[in-house]
Amino acid sequence: MTEPLYELAHLGHAELLTPVYDRSLAFFTEVYGLDLVHESGGSAYLRAWGDHDLTTLKLTAADRAGLGHVAWRAVSPQALTRRVAALEERGVEGEWIDGDFGHGKAYSFIAPSGQRMELYFETEKYRAPAGKASYLPNQPQSSVARGVGAARIDHINVLANDVPGTREVMCEALGFKLREHLIPPGQPEVGAWLSLMNKAHDLAITREPVPGVTGRLHHLAYAVENREDVLRAADIFCELGVEIEFGPAKHSRTQGFFLYVLEPGGNRIEVFSGGFHIFAPDWEPVTWTTEGQGRSTAWGLEVPASFHSHATPVLP
Amino acid sequence: MTEPLYELAHLGHAELLTPVYDRSLAFFTEVYGLDLVHESGGSAYLRAWGDHDLTTLKLTAADRAGLGHVAWRAVSPQALTRRVAALEERGVEGEWIDGDFGHGKAYSFIAPSGQRMELYFETEKYRAPAGKASYLPNQPQSSVARGVGAARIDHINVLANDVPGTREVMCEALGFKLREHLIPPGQPEVGAWLSLMNKAHDLAITREPVPGVTGRLHHLAYAVENREDVLRAADIFCELGVEIEFGPAKHSRTQGFFLYVLEPGGNRIEVFSGGFHIFAPDWEPVTWTTEGQGRSTAWGLEVPASFHSHATPVLP
Amino acid sequence: MTEPLYELAHLGHAELLTPVYDRSLAFFTEVYGLDLVHESGGSAYLRAWGDHDLTTLKLTAADRAGLGHVAWRAVSPQALTRRVAALEERGVEGEWIDGDFGHGKAYSFIAPSGQRMELYFETEKYRAPAGKASYLPNQPQSSVARGVGAARIDHINVLANDVPGTREVMCEALGFKLREHLIPPGQPEVGAWLSLMNKAHDLAITREPVPGVTGRLHHLAYAVENREDVLRAADIFCELGVEIEFGPAKHSRTQGFFLYVLEPGGNRIEVFSGGFHIFAPDWEPVTWTTEGQGRSTAWGLEVPASFHSHATPVLP
Amino acid sequence: MTEPLYELAHLGHAELLTPVYDRSLAFFTEVYGLDLVHESGGSAYLRAWGDHDLTTLKLTAADRAGLGHVAWRAVSPQALTRRVAALEERGVEGEWIDGDFGHGKAYSFIAPSGQRMELYFETEKYRAPAGKASYLPNQPQSSVARGVGAARIDHINVLANDVPGTREVMCEALGFKLREHLIPPGQPEVGAWLSLMNKAHDLAITREPVPGVTGRLHHLAYAVENREDVLRAADIFCELGVEIEFGPAKHSRTQGFFLYVLEPGGNRIEVFSGGFHIFAPDWEPVTWTTEGQGRSTAWGLEVPASFHSHATPVLP
Repeated sequence: MTEPLYELAHLGHAELLTPVYDRSLAFFTEVYGLDLVHESGGSAYLRAWGDHDLTTLKLTAADRAGLGHVAWRAVSPQALTRRVAALEERGVEGEWIDGDFGHGKAYSFIAPSGQRMELYFETEKYRAPAGKASYLPNQPQSSVARGVGAARIDHINVLANDVPGTREVMCEALGFKLREHLIPPGQPEVGAWLSLMNKAHDLAITREPVPGVTGRLHHLAYAVENREDVLRAADIFCELGVEIEFGPAKHSRTQGFFLYVLEPGGNRIEVFSGGFHIFAPDWEPVTWTTEGQGRSTAWGLEVPASFHSHATPVLP
Repeated sequence: MTEPLYELAHLGHAELLTPVYDRSLAFFTEVYGLDLVHESGGSAYLRAWGDHDLTTLKLTAADRAGLGHVAWRAVSPQALTRRVAALEERGVEGEWIDGDFGHGKAYSFIAPSGQRMELYFETEKYRAPAGKASYLPNQPQSSVARGVGAARIDHINVLANDVPGTREVMCEALGFKLREHLIPPGQPEVGAWLSLMNKAHDLAITREPVPGVTGRLHHLAYAVENREDVLRAADIFCELGVEIEFGPAKHSRTQGFFLYVLEPGGNRIEVFSGGFHIFAPDWEPVTWTTEGQGRSTAWGLEVPASFHSHATPVLP
Repeated sequence: MTEPLYELAHLGHAELLTPVYDRSLAFFTEVYGLDLVHESGGSAYLRAWGDHDLTTLKLTAADRAGLGHVAWRAVSPQALTRRVAALEERGVEGEWIDGDFGHGKAYSFIAPSGQRMELYFETEKYRAPAGKASYLPNQPQSSVARGVGAARIDHINVLANDVPGTREVMCEALGFKLREHLIPPGQPEVGAWLSLMNKAHDLAITREPVPGVTGRLHHLAYAVENREDVLRAADIFCELGVEIEFGPAKHSRTQGFFLYVLEPGGNRIEVFSGGFHIFAPDWEPVTWTTEGQGRSTAWGLEVPASFHSHATPVLP
Repeated sequence: MTEPLYELAHLGHAELLTPVYDRSLAFFTEVYGLDLVHESGGSAYLRAWGDHDLTTLKLTAADRAGLGHVAWRAVSPQALTRRVAALEERGVEGEWIDGDFGHGKAYSFIAPSGQRMELYFETEKYRAPAGKASYLPNQPQSSVARGVGAARIDHINVLANDVPGTREVMCEALGFKLREHLIPPGQPEVGAWLSLMNKAHDLAITREPVPGVTGRLHHLAYAVENREDVLRAADIFCELGVEIEFGPAKHSRTQGFFLYVLEPGGNRIEVFSGGFHIFAPDWEPVTWTTEGQGRSTAWGLEVPASFHSHATPVLP
């Protein structure tokens, strides 16, 4: 048996681009409930109350919405070196960058699906100032939050022209594990759900609906603590004037309980809770094939058309 | 930086001894909600609906209650070989055994705290027969269960005379990570919470209250899906005549939501949900020291005296 | 100010007709979780664990599905007499019947919308036998149930050609209070939600989609204890092969959290939780008028077409 | 059968006295989550987001903590007149007062247990200004709130030297219904739980522990929407430095899920959810007598000593 790789630890942070920076920032702080920890060079650096790292979201003013980059943290400096070598061995070229607010040097590369990604190890941990500290010393920050109260960064879903080709690089070079994939009869693989350790997914790769287009974001998700928090989020979004695109409902893949909205810049944002845990080191990927099994939601709720068509950047 | 070890995957199964086998079996099946998958040689082999392995609990008739053994699954055959070598290097001697119902060959040894433990890799996955299959192909079994409906094996708490000595072997030889520990002012370390990957704990080691006694069990825990399921379990225990020892309430360490009862044989059994997730590969162990921080429950609920004194086997 | 009438206490029971008696009975007992308390004359009498009356559902074999009758309990014998007089004053003629299993004499009449209804006072309270008793003396029965575990009868939704005409009789003669109604621009009133005391609705009257048809049932609802129980019900229905028609989601009217399925006979059955409480004796009915306000679900989920077209009996 | 009286509609409002007005006001607004709607004459008038009346809590600066008064709203002006006559018939003398911010003329009297009470009908409904309006027209105010987010006034617990004597007046003159009472073997009735319509209690009367003392408050409760909100409140209190006295746990009487704290002035405040519903007009009061049944919490959690001894005003 080939040994499983445990070389990447978690989704570290993501950078979202927005053409309406102020409104997006207001959404993420006042509605989604993140804290602004730093602002410079046209970017805001944000964090959720349960994030142990200083910042997990970089919001950057740009001409159009989309994913600036997504960054994965290695389990050690040695693992970082090994994963970069493995990428280069497979012909995925990148470059070392100096780092950014909140983390040290990183290896920046373009995934086969076209999104910019980073690998890094050095990170700055959050140290709560007096007014932000939790009564629980094992929690990075007080859980008293605004709005939806997003608790911690959870996963990202990118689009790819070639789902199996993309996930093979992510698995073989970086140690992602394929947990579930969707192969409708007579079609290529249209979705793959990958994770690093015990989660059902840290990264979802689903099929880009527009031929030849690359690098688009389907959604970024933060977790809340339970399903009641997702239901509560639905009311809060409605009270605060944010339209719900899809949910709350239960995913079939990952079994997570979800809710999707578009932030003012147009990027799709999820409020997520749950998802099953994977402990088996020899997990056999679940292949969803038939219509019966293949439905996107566990209880039969239909997926809105926009969920299959909208992604960022929006195409002209 | 020393690289973190990801060599053990999860708590595989535990063997509980009971002097009232029939009553214990009735408790685990009818009240706790496990399924009986096999019975032979005076032992019952049980599983929860969400367990991916064939069996996670072995219940064995014995003169007195206690822990028969607890078994940890390695991430690969190679990792198994390496961990056995690491144990032997540290002078922890054991022996290879042929395996048991549900798993292959295992290395059996006595932990420094006196409990018998096993390491193994080969396991039998559960394949649900028609009437037990779930509508969700990524779930091992239908979630429709009896009673409390325990969902999956979660963690174990053993007692040790020497908490730091025990956890050091578990961490250094086997790759457990110290997540939190409790060192009251002027006292030795009285508790340590260790995990393998993303959970807050797979193994808790707390101090044996009786000098010189070794090998005792504090509790075994299965998880349910959310806090409402723990509250529901409280009513079900009461309706079915099982007295609650402690909870429902929120732990300070691990932040899990808990409920404890004694099964008819006397072993303490927990219904557990939640617990924070740990993604940082360089997690700094949280040292609980003061009374203010050191309380055992998050919201201030006092711990009943029995929780500090009762363990199995009960001393004469 | 005209004094509000508090003359009817609650929805007492409903009789459902089914062309597949055995399968309907299996659904209500094994899936929905009711107990069978009596069977005679081609009818089964059932109860939920939280019902204080002996029986709240009568299931009767018939050529086609539909509502046999629905019965409202008066707050006193005197109130019963007064309400019958009030009906007759308004020209609604009926007849006294001897009663049925579980209740005494009743006044049986046809509502303006065509459904048979009964008013009664004498009822038989449930006295739990030993194995069914709850550990809580203020609860009629142990809450340990099968399947969905429906907890108590809650409300009924009937169809009417003339919604305002029907609800005026129910309000003026019987003391129902109009809580909310839906009057789309340029249309007649298409829905009215009425209650007796503190609930948001005991009776909903919505518009019969087929001109000239009378007496049809839209749905019958039992309550569960919270929203998690509704989510749990969704999984249980799926595990047990019952297709979900609509939900789980949050109603805009009543704000209840809902889930609808069809029982094997074709009658629509709801699992319901919550709904706001009404304490004001001078509650001003909420008129839903615009599209924005008028949507049927709070969070924007679209209503499936079948929800507007299917009712029982199904038309040839 | 004597007809049940439905003459009072609900707990209208309560006035709490506090020796630390500013700190109490900060607690109720920032931690408990009420809105301040008016301030005058040394009193603050507050409301919860789900209250339909303009104000439900009056907070008044005073030398010591305690209950200023508690007010019950009649179902009609006629019912108000009848209830005042019924009080006077029983020798309970009072006086008409002009009303206060938020309500019209009221009849003010001293209950047999010594607390000042008011009966009134005319009330001012809350009309949300633009920024406070809910997206749901059947909800008085946006549910986005601060801190615990108390949702609506629920019930009050007063102390009485003579529990049965007090409740008899409340029942016979005012139409409260006795739902449950506690009579330990060989003792007088030490607790009575009364309600007006469908709730398990609007008023609890428990025994004053100090002979001869009258008029004290045990606690005032606001409801939240579900048990998860109570659990969430526990964390929020801890994060905001408010010590929990008791709970979260489940009451045996009423079956409500509860959490108690002392506000800075010393008055005990509950966060409450659930409680069973009572629909039977001929409900037979549940008499709790034995130890087994008589425990105060459903799951066996012991009641802290302070819960039996502390009340406001605190005795010198």
